[in-house]
Amino acid sequence: MSSLEIHNPQPTIQNFLQASWNFLGLPDEITFPERARGWLLSVPYEATTSYGAGTREGPAAIIAASRQVELYDHEFGCEPVMEYGIHTLPPVNPVISSPDAMIQAVEEVVAGLLSGEKRPEVLGVLGGEHSISAGVVRGLVRARSAKNLVAVHVDAHADMREEYEGSLYSHACAARRIVETCPIFQIGIRNLSLDEADFLRSCKTARTVFSEASTDPNGGFLKDLAKFVRNKNVYLTVDLDGLDSSIMPAVGTPEPGGISWERMLDVIRTVSMNAAAVPVFDVVELAPIPGYRAADFLAAKLVYKMFSHILMSPRKQKATHENPELCVTRPRQKM
Amino acid sequence: MSSLEIHNPQPTIQNFLQASWNFLGLPDEITFPERARGWLLSVPYEATTSYGAGTREGPAAIIAASRQVELYDHEFGCEPVMEYGIHTLPPVNPVISSPDAMIQAVEEVVAGLLSGEKRPEVLGVLGGEHSISAGVVRGLVRARSAKNLVAVHVDAHADMREEYEGSLYSHACAARRIVETCPIFQIGIRNLSLDEADFLRSCKTARTVFSEASTDPNGGFLKDLAKFVRNKNVYLTVDLDGLDSSIMPAVGTPEPGGISWERMLDVIRTVSMNAAAVPVFDVVELAPIPGYRAADFLAAKLVYKMFSHILMSPRKQKATHENPELCVTRPRQKM
Amino acid sequence: MSSLEIHNPQPTIQNFLQASWNFLGLPDEITFPERARGWLLSVPYEATTSYGAGTREGPAAIIAASRQVELYDHEFGCEPVMEYGIHTLPPVNPVISSPDAMIQAVEEVVAGLLSGEKRPEVLGVLGGEHSISAGVVRGLVRARSAKNLVAVHVDAHADMREEYEGSLYSHACAARRIVETCPIFQIGIRNLSLDEADFLRSCKTARTVFSEASTDPNGGFLKDLAKFVRNKNVYLTVDLDGLDSSIMPAVGTPEPGGISWERMLDVIRTVSMNAAAVPVFDVVELAPIPGYRAADFLAAKLVYKMFSHILMSPRKQKATHENPELCVTRPRQKM
Amino acid sequence: MSSLEIHNPQPTIQNFLQASWNFLGLPDEITFPERARGWLLSVPYEATTSYGAGTREGPAAIIAASRQVELYDHEFGCEPVMEYGIHTLPPVNPVISSPDAMIQAVEEVVAGLLSGEKRPEVLGVLGGEHSISAGVVRGLVRARSAKNLVAVHVDAHADMREEYEGSLYSHACAARRIVETCPIFQIGIRNLSLDEADFLRSCKTARTVFSEASTDPNGGFLKDLAKFVRNKNVYLTVDLDGLDSSIMPAVGTPEPGGISWERMLDVIRTVSMNAAAVPVFDVVELAPIPGYRAADFLAAKLVYKMFSHILMSPRKQKATHENPELCVTRPRQKM
Amino acid sequence: MSSLEIHNPQPTIQNFLQASWNFLGLPDEITFPERARGWLLSVPYEATTSYGAGTREGPAAIIAASRQVELYDHEFGCEPVMEYGIHTLPPVNPVISSPDAMIQAVEEVVAGLLSGEKRPEVLGVLGGEHSISAGVVRGLVRARSAKNLVAVHVDAHADMREEYEGSLYSHACAARRIVETCPIFQIGIRNLSLDEADFLRSCKTARTVFSEASTDPNGGFLKDLAKFVRNKNVYLTVDLDGLDSSIMPAVGTPEPGGISWERMLDVIRTVSMNAAAVPVFDVVELAPIPGYRAADFLAAKLVYKMFSHILMSPRKQKATHENPELCVTRPRQKM
Amino acid sequence: MSSLEIHNPQPTIQNFLQASWNFLGLPDEITFPERARGWLLSVPYEATTSYGAGTREGPAAIIAASRQVELYDHEFGCEPVMEYGIHTLPPVNPVISSPDAMIQAVEEVVAGLLSGEKRPEVLGVLGGEHSISAGVVRGLVRARSAKNLVAVHVDAHADMREEYEGSLYSHACAARRIVETCPIFQIGIRNLSLDEADFLRSCKTARTVFSEASTDPNGGFLKDLAKFVRNKNVYLTVDLDGLDSSIMPAVGTPEPGGISWERMLDVIRTVSMNAAAVPVFDVVELAPIPGYRAADFLAAKLVYKMFSHILMSPRKQKATHENPELCVTRPRQKM
Repeated sequence: MSSLEIHNPQPTIQNFLQASWNFLGLPDEITFPERARGWLLSVPYEATTSYGAGTREGPAAIIAASRQVELYDHEFGCEPVMEYGIHTLPPVNPVISSPDAMIQAVEEVVAGLLSGEKRPEVLGVLGGEHSISAGVVRGLVRARSAKNLVAVHVDAHADMREEYEGSLYSHACAARRIVETCPIFQIGIRNLSLDEADFLRSCKTARTVFSEASTDPNGGFLKDLAKFVRNKNVYLTVDLDGLDSSIMPAVGTPEPGGISWERMLDVIRTVSMNAAAVPVFDVVELAPIPGYRAADFLAAKLVYKMFSHILMSPRKQKATHENPELCVTRPRQKM
Repeated sequence: MSSLEIHNPQPTIQNFLQASWNFLGLPDEITFPERARGWLLSVPYEATTSYGAGTREGPAAIIAASRQVELYDHEFGCEPVMEYGIHTLPPVNPVISSPDAMIQAVEEVVAGLLSGEKRPEVLGVLGGEHSISAGVVRGLVRARSAKNLVAVHVDAHADMREEYEGSLYSHACAARRIVETCPIFQIGIRNLSLDEADFLRSCKTARTVFSEASTDPNGGFLKDLAKFVRNKNVYLTVDLDGLDSSIMPAVGTPEPGGISWERMLDVIRTVSMNAAAVPVFDVVELAPIPGYRAADFLAAKLVYKMFSHILMSPRKQKATHENPELCVTRPRQKM
Repeated sequence: MSSLEIHNPQPTIQNFLQASWNFLGLPDEITFPERARGWLLSVPYEATTSYGAGTREGPAAIIAASRQVELYDHEFGCEPVMEYGIHTLPPVNPVISSPDAMIQAVEEVVAGLLSGEKRPEVLGVLGGEHSISAGVVRGLVRARSAKNLVAVHVDAHADMREEYEGSLYSHACAARRIVETCPIFQIGIRNLSLDEADFLRSCKTARTVFSEASTDPNGGFLKDLAKFVRNKNVYLTVDLDGLDSSIMPAVGTPEPGGISWERMLDVIRTVSMNAAAVPVFDVVELAPIPGYRAADFLAAKLVYKMFSHILMSPRKQKATHENPELCVTRPRQKM
Repeated sequence: MSSLEIHNPQPTIQNFLQASWNFLGLPDEITFPERARGWLLSVPYEATTSYGAGTREGPAAIIAASRQVELYDHEFGCEPVMEYGIHTLPPVNPVISSPDAMIQAVEEVVAGLLSGEKRPEVLGVLGGEHSISAGVVRGLVRARSAKNLVAVHVDAHADMREEYEGSLYSHACAARRIVETCPIFQIGIRNLSLDEADFLRSCKTARTVFSEASTDPNGGFLKDLAKFVRNKNVYLTVDLDGLDSSIMPAVGTPEPGGISWERMLDVIRTVSMNAAAVPVFDVVELAPIPGYRAADFLAAKLVYKMFSHILMSPRKQKATHENPELCVTRPRQKM
Repeated sequence: MSSLEIHNPQPTIQNFLQASWNFLGLPDEITFPERARGWLLSVPYEATTSYGAGTREGPAAIIAASRQVELYDHEFGCEPVMEYGIHTLPPVNPVISSPDAMIQAVEEVVAGLLSGEKRPEVLGVLGGEHSISAGVVRGLVRARSAKNLVAVHVDAHADMREEYEGSLYSHACAARRIVETCPIFQIGIRNLSLDEADFLRSCKTARTVFSEASTDPNGGFLKDLAKFVRNKNVYLTVDLDGLDSSIMPAVGTPEPGGISWERMLDVIRTVSMNAAAVPVFDVVELAPIPGYRAADFLAAKLVYKMFSHILMSPRKQKATHENPELCVTRPRQKM
Repeated sequence: MSSLEIHNPQPTIQNFLQASWNFLGLPDEITFPERARGWLLSVPYEATTSYGAGTREGPAAIIAASRQVELYDHEFGCEPVMEYGIHTLPPVNPVISSPDAMIQAVEEVVAGLLSGEKRPEVLGVLGGEHSISAGVVRGLVRARSAKNLVAVHVDAHADMREEYEGSLYSHACAARRIVETCPIFQIGIRNLSLDEADFLRSCKTARTVFSEASTDPNGGFLKDLAKFVRNKNVYLTVDLDGLDSSIMPAVGTPEPGGISWERMLDVIRTVSMNAAAVPVFDVVELAPIPGYRAADFLAAKLVYKMFSHILMSPRKQKATHENPELCVTRPRQKM
């Protein structure tokens, strides 16, 4: 007896009911863990934020908004998710005894999911605050090893503090915890402390592209990025405040001078086209503004784009699909 | 293989994850349709509202807020829902071709659920706008017959228009459609049109308790109510604007002079203690105000109270529980 | 050629169009100045407010909300406004050179309206901040004389400062300017300065009912009020912060401990039943909260109630109506 | 006796009062239907929206914001509206019996206005949701014939569904209903379904410029647009979500990657310079965000720009003005 | 050279400038620690909240709102603060390494302040979330001993969990940590878990007045309260959600059925009249709703009332004031 | 005895407490007037605004947001404020007797501050509405003379009205009052009246760069600006609505087509590099949108950038710093 039958005792009524609550509002048949190549985990954790509040409500807002995102993607000329499927997991419970304990919990969950018998090809994680990324990267390393791993980090802030407000696991230390594990490539940075600037000058494994270069129309840094990720396993971590405050005001510390939607897509395309794999990504720090849905919607669309580019990039299609011609990573020629 | 195993491939990870998305955030084992005596259906429909907007977001807001409601109810001295269980159904899809078509869809779903092989003892319905009640009552009649059926209606508005803005199924006609089916008892009314007043004067099957009497501290009308519902099957329909605008501002046309939280509970207690059964109730017209959660929370608590009083009233406990002493409908004596 | 024809070149299209923009959304035929016994003037002025902001948007919010108020009033058993009519005037333009100049402008307009050939039986004025009341009362006195005039003042604040922030015409001086003109009866007061308290102790012509007495369930002060207004011409000035902050949070300085909706109606009834006439009233200080319509709606309903009680009180009905039986100032007996 | 005298019984008081409530807050003398070449109709209809809510409040918000728009337009070097005048009609009443019935009502009104004895040179229509456009174009065709008619459509969504949620007249079908009547040119499209993409590939009469091309700095598509509209009668329909979500977040489904304010003006200029006439345009889908006025203001300015460019384009000036030198459609040289 | 001179280099300019930023906007001379008998400490800490967010912004909102509170208090017939003075301390920095570390920091600060050479007669503390109370009571005990100490606790929630979400110092454990130190009297409780109910039944040192009794118009429990605090040192801790959600919606989990403003004052009066001393109180859990100032204002007024009643109760006046006649704790008889 | 000791009686407690309330949340030692080269004055005045409301809350919102701005500035490669220091003055009290009286008060304060014995090198002023600039420039002239003085004005509106709504000191006259004192260079203008356009055409001392030129990517006008300010004393006045409405929606009349964050910095750099001195600047018209912090944050960052560029420009560094190499006005080459 299938799960569907258990849950839906009056099959004929189904025609009137909406799909279950999940990312993109997908039909059940492509969301079972066995069939979905992408899995999505929510971590509605917020405890170390300095200013503003509300990142704990970010994951739910992204999922709610995602139900209005069109499945068809003009760039791919198809409904990509209908090919790869996404499984939406229940949110991780916050642990409040300490940020360390919470980060540990995230590590356990991520490591467990990535090393399970059934496991996703790509695990997307929704924050919550950026501090969770320390747990995400640790879980990834435990499940897959740190060999050949690099991180790509979009953010307004360097997040390279050794410690902040008495914790190693503040949101302001997110990238520092990552760079202790693997090399990192930072994009969109426009806010950092004196100590962070000093650290970055001496750090051999961090490459920081500041705001001016990140938003340069020519996007010269994209070549460096392509080189950085080539044939690597990439952990892609996006703090939404890396985007310009005009399109993404719903973050704790929105900063002018950030990167545009188009540039964000350039980064995703560059990573997915060149990396060996992107086993995990996270999108963090959405703090929904009541009544202002544009930010939630953009974040939802971004997460869908990330899944699609990573799971539909040409190389991967060869391995897993019959008809690579139908879905190529470039605009369809004419319409 | 159980449904739980299908959905949760890494059992040990479960410890870190929250319960599934459902009313009250209940553990899966008491939410399966076979085991839950209460079922909850969302109808996020909004098409005929005159003023204000947002009732389509009411059901999701109530469910989100319900996850913070304490399961323990001091009035019962136990966690009532752990005894009776609630199954949360997916929302009904809006049909926009006409209000008639939507009301028809609601009728189909309600009739289907109530006459299914597995079926709830009590079906709660969350609106959406009040117009859906016409479908709810019709579905109830189709599944159970109109014999012995009466309606109890809490509202600020009489909703007795024959037709409004060109439709028989406007929210402003909700009670008129009901009174065509069964006698109705209205509470909290303080806004009606000249035609409605004329109709009510001539209508034999409607009993209207206006605002002044509804809010009278002595609650004299409760005796009449008890008589009205005694040994009847009751359909209880609550438009949240029946409550005072101080505690429930999140409705389309909030009106001063409404009934209090305590009086609302009096009504529920009176109905559940005296009725033969309350097979269906609905709670409609919540239009969440961004950033103002008190209203969502009150609505969630109200829905829980309605389930508990209906399913835990003494008579019913005899039939279905071992230990009626533990859960009685009155405050525990001392603490 | 009637005005209607001029404005509506395609008569048959009229059936599809809404009524013009006016208080209560009334049909044109009962809003012409010749036929409307009540006139409504907006004074969207805000310049001296200490805290909060937005009273300049109060009049528009009240008029917008009024379009959803039901014309039928259960207390009267009819649609009162269809008998007396209301003419909505365009708003007074703010003058910013000084509060004095603005108050002078209000005086000119009010005096002009009240002494025109065509003139209203009752002029309602919507603020804007309370400072405008100084102009309203001066205009009234100029048009009608101060003989036999008294003021009834609902407010949380005594507003009895001689001068505030360098101006005689601050909102905090509203009642002081009135008491220089005529005796005043204050209700709901719960915030005043040391100087105001001293002044009130020495002032023979001000009677202040403080919060505790104003909200006393027995309403003992209503008898004093009846005596105060008996056979007088009454100027009724309502600062909405006199109401409790639970039902009226949308004011500059919302105060707990205020009067209820029912008590507010008691005051209006007492005044209209006992006064010789109420040629002018004002309702001031609504500062709409974006997204929170309950306050706007309550204010709109209050203004309608004020017009109805003043224009429909038994004595006046004798003078102007054929069928006083139909519309009496008490709840209809049964329904 | 003029209408002005009827309405304003105390002429000297007028100096203190604001202009009547109308688009741009214009003085009465240029708003009479006989003298205004542009008429503005509001259709505050919302019934089929999937997500978000509030388009029914769009027209009122645009009119309110318009009262702060400066009449002088630097691009024209004059106050254009003082030459052509705008008459603001009362809003169309919603019909809720079905979307079909509402669309029919819009058709009746638009056809009636355009074929009346007195009639506008340009009719602007404010939504409300996009579904109303089906009625607008049908009314236009009935009054003027479909011969030589083309549509220009700015939107984020193709709106080319044959039917949606059970209705042919959903907002998601707006463009499909138009293309059944006349050829269409779509700009800014970045969200469509698989079926819509298939339909567009096979449809000979639709030309779709997707987001990437619409926002291309060179604006290459503008030449195609000029050719498309040359010597045609153009129906211009603007769904505000075609604009970038950074400048227009106040829509149901705000999408990143949209067109800028400057590009929007390019489209308007291109259309008005090349078309034979633009007898009707509409601006739809504004769903005001409480407290966030920038979007309302932009929409109001856009509507003014549309009237001015259409009514002041050089060809038309010859016909109707004395001094075409004063008002030319290009920036004044120096200042 | 006085501090004032240091900070204000151009004394004559002072006349134009506002008072410094402090609670009630007091003139500098009564806010120096040496002269102020009341000190106010902010603890903008939020890390363990389950739902809603924003208590970290509570203290700043209270202080901002307090600047509009009238210094004169009608109940005392004077400006009480001008007699006793309040010193506003800078906020405590959040420590995020763990709730334990933060609670420890609060303990250090409170203990330090209460045992300093200069020290307040009453220390008021503004939260932040309720978890801080564990630190407050510990600091108090360390500085003054637990002998003769009792706690009075206003709240909607029992807060008696042994541990919550992995921490002993969650907001949901606040009262449990207190009752480990001293007997507690709880008022307004209407939300608790099964375990908490069990604990309360067995706990000898906790006295819980549930919602029904707390809101009973006769206030019978006030006698018990008077007995409980008589001649004790009282720690008074107010979670604002103990108030009814109609007057205090700006809390994480607003609950209907709470106590009124007048009842809250009854509690304060009863405590201050009967206790030997109230060395510390706290007011916690305000989570300001953007745009809704009524809640902030009520909280500010409450804090002022608490200082005044505690510092001006008759017994204390004898000790510290010359003219006890001027300031008595009861309404002035006439005005 | 130092002021610090007076205010902080328990030195060891200091470690737990935050810095005092001031711009950027600076440590006390660099905020004393003697040591701070920059002083910041708030003028929370709002009385003449036509539309929208809330500029009186602008200064407090900027200071609150500034506490989250990182002190380190990547462009300078250091924490500039730690070198020059900023002293935050208490806000100027509003005078409401008339705009003239308020402008006079601002003049007194500014003149007094600039001519005091201790005085700032740069005085920053936060509005409040733009009308205050008339007082600022008059105060500057009185203290320093108008010789060699020019003004640079960023705005969406020309603000060149001779008088508006009966006052010479409306916000709409701000630039007109300035140009009566010294030549002015306007940037970003896109809204003006016919009379203003006429005035600008005839005015020899105003140079207006309209929107199209101000936003031109090549920034051709910056050369003209450099010439205009060369070796002059510059008064820089920034109305935040000069910025594009996408990044700055929180103003009374947000206008599309404004200048970007990067262009705003270009203007500041051009002025500070070329001027002889910039003794005073103001940033006005922020009207915070509840819940939308991006605008407050941008304004705070802008004010910091203005102080830094003016006080750290190379020429000035020579005069006042030891190590000009560390802090140069250009991006650090590598990182």
